This record gives sequence, C-alpha cells and structure tokens, in this order.
Amino acid sequence: MTSPAPLITLLTDFGESSPYVAAMKAVILSICPDARLVDLCHVVRPQAVEEGAFLLSTLINLFPPRTIHVAVVDPGVGTARRAIALRTATAMFVGPDNGLLTAALPDSHRPAADSGPSPVPLPPGVDAIHLTNARYFRPTVSATFHGRDIFAPVAAHLAAGTPLAAFGEPLSEVLAFGVWRGVVIGPSTISGRVVHVDHYGNCVTTVRGEDLASREVIVEVAGQRFAGLQRTFQDRPEFVVYVGSSGFLEIALRNGDAAAALNIGIGEPVAVHLRTMA
Amino acid sequence: MTSPAPLITLLTDFGESSPYVAAMKAVILSICPDARLVDLCHVVRPQAVEEGAFLLSTLINLFPPRTIHVAVVDPGVGTARRAIALRTATAMFVGPDNGLLTAALPDSHRPAADSGPSPVPLPPGVDAIHLTNARYFRPTVSATFHGRDIFAPVAAHLAAGTPLAAFGEPLSEVLAFGVWRGVVIGPSTISGRVVHVDHYGNCVTTVRGEDLASREVIVEVAGQRFAGLQRTFQDRPEFVVYVGSSGFLEIALRNGDAAAALNIGIGEPVAVHLRTMA
Amino acid sequence: MTSPAPLITLLTDFGESSPYVAAMKAVILSICPDARLVDLCHVVRPQAVEEGAFLLSTLINLFPPRTIHVAVVDPGVGTARRAIALRTATAMFVGPDNGLLTAALPDSHRPAADSGPSPVPLPPGVDAIHLTNARYFRPTVSATFHGRDIFAPVAAHLAAGTPLAAFGEPLSEVLAFGVWRGVVIGPSTISGRVVHVDHYGNCVTTVRGEDLASREVIVEVAGQRFAGLQRTFQDRPEFVVYVGSSGFLEIALRNGDAAAALNIGIGEPVAVHLRTMA
Repeated sequence: MTSPAPLITLLTDFGESSPYVAAMKAVILSICPDARLVDLCHVVRPQAVEEGAFLLSTLINLFPPRTIHVAVVDPGVGTARRAIALRTATAMFVGPDNGLLTAALPDSHRPAADSGPSPVPLPPGVDAIHLTNARYFRPTVSATFHGRDIFAPVAAHLAAGTPLAAFGEPLSEVLAFGVWRGVVIGPSTISGRVVHVDHYGNCVTTVRGEDLASREVIVEVAGQRFAGLQRTFQDRPEFVVYVGSSGFLEIALRNGDAAAALNIGIGEPVAVHLRTMA
Repeated sequence: MTSPAPLITLLTDFGESSPYVAAMKAVILSICPDARLVDLCHVVRPQAVEEGAFLLSTLINLFPPRTIHVAVVDPGVGTARRAIALRTATAMFVGPDNGLLTAALPDSHRPAADSGPSPVPLPPGVDAIHLTNARYFRPTVSATFHGRDIFAPVAAHLAAGTPLAAFGEPLSEVLAFGVWRGVVIGPSTISGRVVHVDHYGNCVTTVRGEDLASREVIVEVAGQRFAGLQRTFQDRPEFVVYVGSSGFLEIALRNGDAAAALNIGIGEPVAVHLRTMA
Repeated sequence: MTSPAPLITLLTDFGESSPYVAAMKAVILSICPDARLVDLCHVVRPQAVEEGAFLLSTLINLFPPRTIHVAVVDPGVGTARRAIALRTATAMFVGPDNGLLTAALPDSHRPAADSGPSPVPLPPGVDAIHLTNARYFRPTVSATFHGRDIFAPVAAHLAAGTPLAAFGEPLSEVLAFGVWRGVVIGPSTISGRVVHVDHYGNCVTTVRGEDLASREVIVEVAGQRFAGLQRTFQDRPEFVVYVGSSGFLEIALRNGDAAAALNIGIGEPVAVHLRTMA
C-alpha cells in the first residue's frame, strides 16, 4: 500500500477567507503538488500569539502521524525573531520562534504555569532548525509576509522529502509559553485566565478539568460568581460553567455570547474556588 | 477506472474558520486518509437547526452519488437526543436526530408544510441507524463535542467501507421538519416565513417560485408591501423580490442588506398575495 | 510520472463559509471528481468587481502552470454581460466579462492607469471564448447564480480536458481595468487610491513601491500626512506606511484597523509626495 499524500495544516491570524492564506497554499502546491491542505483556523485574533499556540495544542493530537503544521501569527515578522522548524516523534512544525509552536513541547518541558514565552531547552526527541538556507525560500523574501516567502515553501519542501537538517542550523532552545494550567493559590483556589474566545463567545480558560475532580466549584470572573459545573448546554438557562471538549474549564451563555455579556476577552482573570464535597 | 476517493461534506454552526471544524477533519483523515473534504457551510446561525437543514437540502442534489454529509447543529448534544446515520439511494448522512438531516427524506414523506420537527416513518429506500456502537467512536466521548467524537469518526468509517448496519440498531422513524412550502391561506394568499438569511442580507423564504407561476404577486413582510417579481438584481433600484437560485422566493436590497434594512431575521412571517394576470 | 490532478481556484464575493461556494464545488466535483479545489478569497466586498480583479492579480503568479481560476463577482448576472473563459500561457480563467479577469492580460495591454473597465483587444498568446454552448452548462440555468450553473461546470469540463474552443465563439476583446499604478501628477506627486482593505484594516493602494525607489515619501490620505516608509510593523508605534508583500504601498495602523481609524474604504484617494533624498 502506498502511503497517503503528505498532509499540511495552516493556522494564521489572516482572517476568514483570506487571500494571504491562498497565497501560502499556491506556494505549497507549486512545490509539492500532491500535498493535502487542511485549514486549522485563520481567525486567531490579530497578533494573538498565545491564542494561536493554545489552539494548535488542542488540535495536533487529532491528526495522523507525520502531519506538518504551518503556523503564522507573527507580529515580529521582518525583525530579528527567528524562523524555525521543529520535529517531534509524531509531527513537524514550521513558523516563527515566538512561542507559537509551543505545542511541539511536552508539558513537562514547558515553563511554569500561565507564564509568557521564554527560552526552553529542547527535550530528547525534539529537533529544531533555525531556517536560514534561502535556497528553500521564495526567490525574493518580503519584509512583511514570511508565511508566503519562507514558511510555506519550507513546509512544502519538508513534505516533498527534503531532510530537516538541510534548512539551516540546529537549535538547542526555542521560545515556549508556560503550561496552560491555572496556578494553585492557597489550599482551595485556582487562579487562571481566559486563553481563547470561540465563535459562540464561549470563554476557554487555562483551568483544567482534571484539577477540579470531585470538588464543588465556584467560578469567579468579571465580578460575578457561578456555582457548580454543568455537563451539557441544556442543564441551565443562563451562564454555564463546564469542562469543555479539550479538557479546560469554559464559561458559556446559553443561546448567547458569554464574552460579550460579561464584557471580557483573552487574558481575563478567572478564579476557581474549590470545596471537597461532603 | 478506479472509483474516486470518498467525498465527505461538513455543515456546522461552528463559525467561519473554526478550530472545531479542523478537529473533525483531523479525526476523519486519521481514519480515512484518502477522504476528500468539502465545507458546505459553517456559519449556520448558532443552534439554528432548521436553517442548517434547509441549507443542506439546497446542496445535496448537486453532489456526486455516494457523498457522505456530516452535519452538526446540535443544541441537544449530551442529552437524550439520538445520534444517527441515514442512507438514501444517492447519499449518506451523519448527525443528530433533531431534524437537521430532513433533506434525506423526500417531500412526500415529510410533515405538513412549515411545521417544526416531528417523528416520520422512514420511506422505502431510506435506512436509518441509531449510532450506538462505541467501537466506531473516539475512545473518550465528551459531553459537548459529538461532532469530533461520534459523527466524524462514524463518517470516516462509513467512507472507509464499514457497512451501515455495523454502527448500531436500525430505526423505523426519525425527526424531520415540515416541507418548506408556504401554506395556502384562502384562494389568493400564501403564508410563509424567512428560513435563511445569506451573507448579503438576502432573505430566503419558504415560499416556492413554482407556486407563483403566471400570477401577479404582492409580497408583504415587516409591514411593507412589494409588488411584482424581478428577474435579476439590476431590474429595480431598491428592494427586489425574486425567485432565487434554489427555487424559493427571496427578498433582497440592491447594493444593501435587506434583513438589516427591514429589521427581520429567520422566522419572520411573509405573506404573498396572488392575482391571476389579466 | 503522472501529472497531478487539475487545480481549480475559486474567488467570489459570496462571503465566508458560503453555501453558494459549496454549490459550485459540488458541481465541479460531479463533473471532474479528481479536481483539487483551492479557495482564493470569498470576502471580496459585495459586487466590488475591481477589488476581486486586484486580488486575483496578486495571487495567480503563485500558482502552478495550468491552474484554472474561476471568479464570480457579478453584479450584472442575468443581464447582457457575457460569460467568458480566457487562456494564457500559464493559466485559464472563467467568469463574467466585467473586468474581473483583468489579471489574464499583461500590464502592457491594459487601459491607462487607474481607469475603470473598458474593452481591450486580446494580446498575442491570450485566447478568449464567449461561453455560449449550453451543453456545458447545468441543464437549467438560473437568472441569479451563474457561478453554479455556468462558470463551475465550464471550469470542470476544462479541467476534464474539453478544448477551449468547444465552449463558444472566439472573442477579439474583453473588458479590463486600467493598470493598477498611481498616476504621476507633476514632477513630484503620484495620485493613487485604495483598491483593497484587508482583514486587519490595512489599506492597499494602487501606488507601486518600485515608483518610489530612493526617494523621501510623504503620504497624504483622508486629510492626514505620514512621512517616511517603514520596513516592518515594529518600526513605528502608530500609523505605518510601507511597501506591502505584493509590491504596493499600504497604510496600516499598528495593533489597529487603519481603514476604520481613518474612516476610509475602497476608492479613497491617496497622494504621494516624493523628494529625492539629499
């Protein structure tokens, strides 16, 4: 049996139905015509590197082995920030070295919970390359669109079989965001924050469902308090607090937009008060 | 000649460029790597089951035989509502049993015009299965995302050749919406409603063009009356009433947004007064 | 080595995640099952023919040879405007004859800079056909959706190998927009306009970077003056004027929406004052 055609995903903050995404796909298909392309998400908030990194982390484990993920949320494009490629046991990643590719690293090798991006030594089994070999870029590299001129062609050449080492110099560390996990404050409070707001206005937090097991929960956000976890959207008429499908605590508004109703966005602090059930 | 790779379409209310759609695609491609994926529409209004069902009905006849349609507009996810798969002579459908898959049934077997979803016995040639065999689900099924955990893997296994009967128990009836066709009130009036508002703000109604043949038409909506049908967008400077490309009466505003200008949305009543032309 | 499957792109003003786009894809895949489909952009402003034409021109050179581009921004659908197909040395184009397919013509054969669409004789090496052979249309052609009923099936038949001449009569001229290049006014001023506003609110103008080489620049737009060109988004805290990734002068607002902040849109005049650097 022949192996299926290479699979390349794209995640950007270019907006829905963007011609910039199409430009990246054109470049990829010119180099690797049989690549299969899957859009991960292009409505990451503009320049919200951490939101992009978080979304990538929720998706990569669903894809087949050897998938190549190209991600471009890149406020530093054209500055000294590095362009990199990463290879793990199950996937490859191409993008800027600004924390966006954090999902390539296991939690055990990431910075302390809920911290900004900082340099992290590569764990065994993860290889990183500083993309410097212009032979694999587009002939002219613009100052503002490395997605088209560097990341897309590198991903396509990787898909077409060029070995990782050919693209530049090995790196021993890359930037990574802290583990997405609320910080324990005292014996009974977890302090987290909103890390993603989805299309419905549902607010996904950094608090993990597994940290709440078997406890009564009061969630405090934007001056309001919500008691108890729900299992489905039909359990309660108004605000709903539940462990979402990616394992994180979420706050939703039944038939409405929780982010708008609470007037909150990415970064909003969330406190979870726990009590062992009697 | 080899048959082309299986074709799977996706329709959801997850929003444009949603990571949840990408999650479904990842699951599908992990199970059936050669599946071809086509997005039908992901901007169905949140939880607007009937709008999703209507859109699906306007699209399925355009696809090649044996296409598999996965649809997820699912306010009841995690409750007792059933997960189902349907097979007709020309297509397969996977989704919640809430009326969303109404398009699998011929008009002749659907409830009375313009009514909400109700149980319908399956006509000859249509098979339905209650999806209960967890062997074809993801190992862990979340309470809130059956699109990823049940519908996507079932569709992928169907595409890969697993027979329909393997997925669960046969059903003899499913929920379906009434036929989309305005109700005749008296000798000269058809009473319908808006069932879809498109990207331009054009309002698609349940009134069918074929019911207006050879008659003068006055359309009454939101307290306004519009006389006469137009054939193209350039026939009139302002509001335009016409039979749209799917065969239904539509109300548009030339170079504008009719839904916003009339302050109407899905469900808005529309009355059509007919007069036989002299 | 077998040649890769035919590649068909789609550009429309149907809006993000539109069912109308899905209808076109369904028709294409029914006729040419192995076609690969790439979305160029579907958020062209409604009926903004020139914006669509401009976006197409920025993308086509990135695609592999023999790509077929189907474009539908078509306010005149159902009127006397012609449906056409064009073939150049490197690509094919299908759409309405309203200037949308301008990118098929070299700059040297287009009307004067920054002018509206006007008839242009075809240069050597470019062939055009008036699409009149209904054998390659859908059996019933609606008055409002030629994308589904004419352009999609024609593109699919082209992809499947039907020769161009089979689709209708040869044309000797088509409509094309003037070259996108600011008009020189006096010795030191270039007069252009905004031709595209992207997802971030960045305003792309018709002024070309190559016309500014080695000169000091003052850009005047909406009553404001901005001095100097920047190279990346991090050079300046506020408004940023730079030569974008497609070679045109752009106006952006760092971490903001320039179009909204300046209250401008497509068509807004832009004056560039040049001074040779001392």
